[in-house]
Amino acid sequence: MAVTPVSVSHPYPPDLDSDPAFALHRGGKLEVRSTVPVNNADDLALAYTPGVARVCTAIAEQPALVNDYTWVSNTVAVITDGTAVLGLGDIGPAAALPVMEGKALLFKQFANVDAVPIGLDCTEVDALVETIVRLAPSFGGINLEDISAPRCFEVEDRLRQVLDIPVFHDDQHGTAIVALAALTNAAKLTGRPLAELRAVVAGAGASGVAVTRILLNAGIGDIAVSDSKGMIYEGREGLNSFKAALARDTNRGGYTGSTEEALAGADVFVGLSGSTVSEAAIASMAPGAIVFALSNPTPEVHPEVARKHARVVATGRSDFPNQINNVLAFPGVFRGALDVRASTITENMKVAAAVALAEVVGDDLSEDYVIPSPFDERVAPAVTAAVAAQARLDGVARL
Amino acid sequence: MAVTPVSVSHPYPPDLDSDPAFALHRGGKLEVRSTVPVNNADDLALAYTPGVARVCTAIAEQPALVNDYTWVSNTVAVITDGTAVLGLGDIGPAAALPVMEGKALLFKQFANVDAVPIGLDCTEVDALVETIVRLAPSFGGINLEDISAPRCFEVEDRLRQVLDIPVFHDDQHGTAIVALAALTNAAKLTGRPLAELRAVVAGAGASGVAVTRILLNAGIGDIAVSDSKGMIYEGREGLNSFKAALARDTNRGGYTGSTEEALAGADVFVGLSGSTVSEAAIASMAPGAIVFALSNPTPEVHPEVARKHARVVATGRSDFPNQINNVLAFPGVFRGALDVRASTITENMKVAAAVALAEVVGDDLSEDYVIPSPFDERVAPAVTAAVAAQARLDGVARL
Repeated sequence: MAVTPVSVSHPYPPDLDSDPAFALHRGGKLEVRSTVPVNNADDLALAYTPGVARVCTAIAEQPALVNDYTWVSNTVAVITDGTAVLGLGDIGPAAALPVMEGKALLFKQFANVDAVPIGLDCTEVDALVETIVRLAPSFGGINLEDISAPRCFEVEDRLRQVLDIPVFHDDQHGTAIVALAALTNAAKLTGRPLAELRAVVAGAGASGVAVTRILLNAGIGDIAVSDSKGMIYEGREGLNSFKAALARDTNRGGYTGSTEEALAGADVFVGLSGSTVSEAAIASMAPGAIVFALSNPTPEVHPEVARKHARVVATGRSDFPNQINNVLAFPGVFRGALDVRASTITENMKVAAAVALAEVVGDDLSEDYVIPSPFDERVAPAVTAAVAAQARLDGVARL
Repeated sequence: MAVTPVSVSHPYPPDLDSDPAFALHRGGKLEVRSTVPVNNADDLALAYTPGVARVCTAIAEQPALVNDYTWVSNTVAVITDGTAVLGLGDIGPAAALPVMEGKALLFKQFANVDAVPIGLDCTEVDALVETIVRLAPSFGGINLEDISAPRCFEVEDRLRQVLDIPVFHDDQHGTAIVALAALTNAAKLTGRPLAELRAVVAGAGASGVAVTRILLNAGIGDIAVSDSKGMIYEGREGLNSFKAALARDTNRGGYTGSTEEALAGADVFVGLSGSTVSEAAIASMAPGAIVFALSNPTPEVHPEVARKHARVVATGRSDFPNQINNVLAFPGVFRGALDVRASTITENMKVAAAVALAEVVGDDLSEDYVIPSPFDERVAPAVTAAVAAQARLDGVARL
């Protein structure tokens, strides 16, 4: 017979719940459920001892069977150290958990991936890498989240080297995939190939670096990046190793001043900085300018202001057109990778995801529709199929 | 609108599934589900950005709110290093996962606790402790599982010292609680108080030590423990620190020979050894003997053989009367601890769980019914209530 579950009590505090966000979050947003029945001794003898011992023995003898007879091959850990949460900064692993739970429910909703939110109480690169490596047998993929730059680059690089499951820092690559998709469509709309566009990226954190890298891979004409001290160029004093590498690979125009100076005549602005850009600077861009003001919750320039001077404007907000939202990418990326049991997520797989995402827009392309809605049912299957196919082409698929 | 999930494929291997245990395990036994709706942009703006940021900020400012606005306070990590899995031994963290998943589904089924199976790829005590401490912000409790002795004792002790959430090694304490409950009823049935019973415990691993400790706490008359080398006594050569402590606290009768020699005239035998005991040794016990032959899947003595000489016989098997099954304890123990947000699980809470479990049997007590069925709906609520009440008495409740 079924057993009546004991109720969970959450008796305090009552006041915050007048805010619907708190009311919705009460008790959390997730649960773990059984997918098999356990209603009598026979069920128990299969799902637990003694039947489970045969399954354990089989996996011990043939390790790949863990993918068939546990939930591992459909499960992703959503891991943070809480150091760069949304625009809130270093709030710690516990306070970051509502974001990780949100990510996990989106994984399930959009791609039927089982995701487990994990906030780690350590911030050193060595400790993070070591801990995640120890956790890895329990999961089919690792989604890193809200880890501050530049540590996030080293954490991801080292994990990718030692683990044979997908490792994906969503703040970097999720943003990069969606931005590339939107820019591909914006360029198409304005009748110019990417190779003819000059872009300025404000922000050299996780997402700024990743967007720059994917645009370089996709063949952007020129791209220059700024941080809080201005444009990043070879020879600038005090660059860390990640910014020095960026300086080598970007800024063929040799901009050495402010972001706003570099914007004069530029075709594309991508803001991932948390700072602001003046209307005058936007107005100084080339005709048919493309402005992605992606800082959350406050874009670098108000989209209605930008729209006066730019042909295409995108933000991170759902209350304006062209929302650049990572949920367009990460569910399908992991679904595709898990479906073919990919050992890693290659750069090609990320570009393929962006191409597929851009193609969902199709003939409906317009200034206010360069990227699909997060609730467009075509998105996750399209990204999934593209990522899985590219994994096979790249030789990283194991199914 | 709702998004159609992409299906999960598990195309191989087909042959094992003729065994119903494998068929049931295909694709694993768990899933993570959302408990809140995310069907449109308004939902998304509450469950994810920007609404989630207000919840994160509140937790950062008032850390205890993590218990109200995330799933943490209802969530337990079921953690193993895969070194002592069932009777299979050291099969590693991946092969252990089917057991951890089984545990997780029982947590949900019997006590509405959300449990996450985690197999850790490390076995050193320092590494296990450090990793679990780093994971702790994500969970409301830690259920340790299938970690070999004597490391399991130190891992649990150190975690209990540094964490302010319940830490419970189920192989030790789950077994101990259920064994104490069954022995309490068996003693009642045979009209003797625990204080007048002399017990012999075969096995000084995790469960043997824990059963011995809880019986000492409960006031057993005398108790002596054996390992593979025979009885454990003060001064025996080569005892590790845990066995030396056991030697100091047990064996007032001064037994120095074999388990079977010590059984002559004993009232209680508890087998947790994986070895065998002869019918002659069982026959040599005192009248009204109580025999718990708990090794799985093969009891130390066949229960029908033991029953010829003993008044009460219990095993770990579901196909004989009096099954000593940990599922009678761990769901209610954690449910009770989580309900009052206990900072730890005290020895008193374990004894209270055993008393409550024994009392479920009530007036139906008989030789073949000293412990309830795992599917008795009264069990988890009774254990829950007893554990929560005792946590309050012990001053470890925070709600």
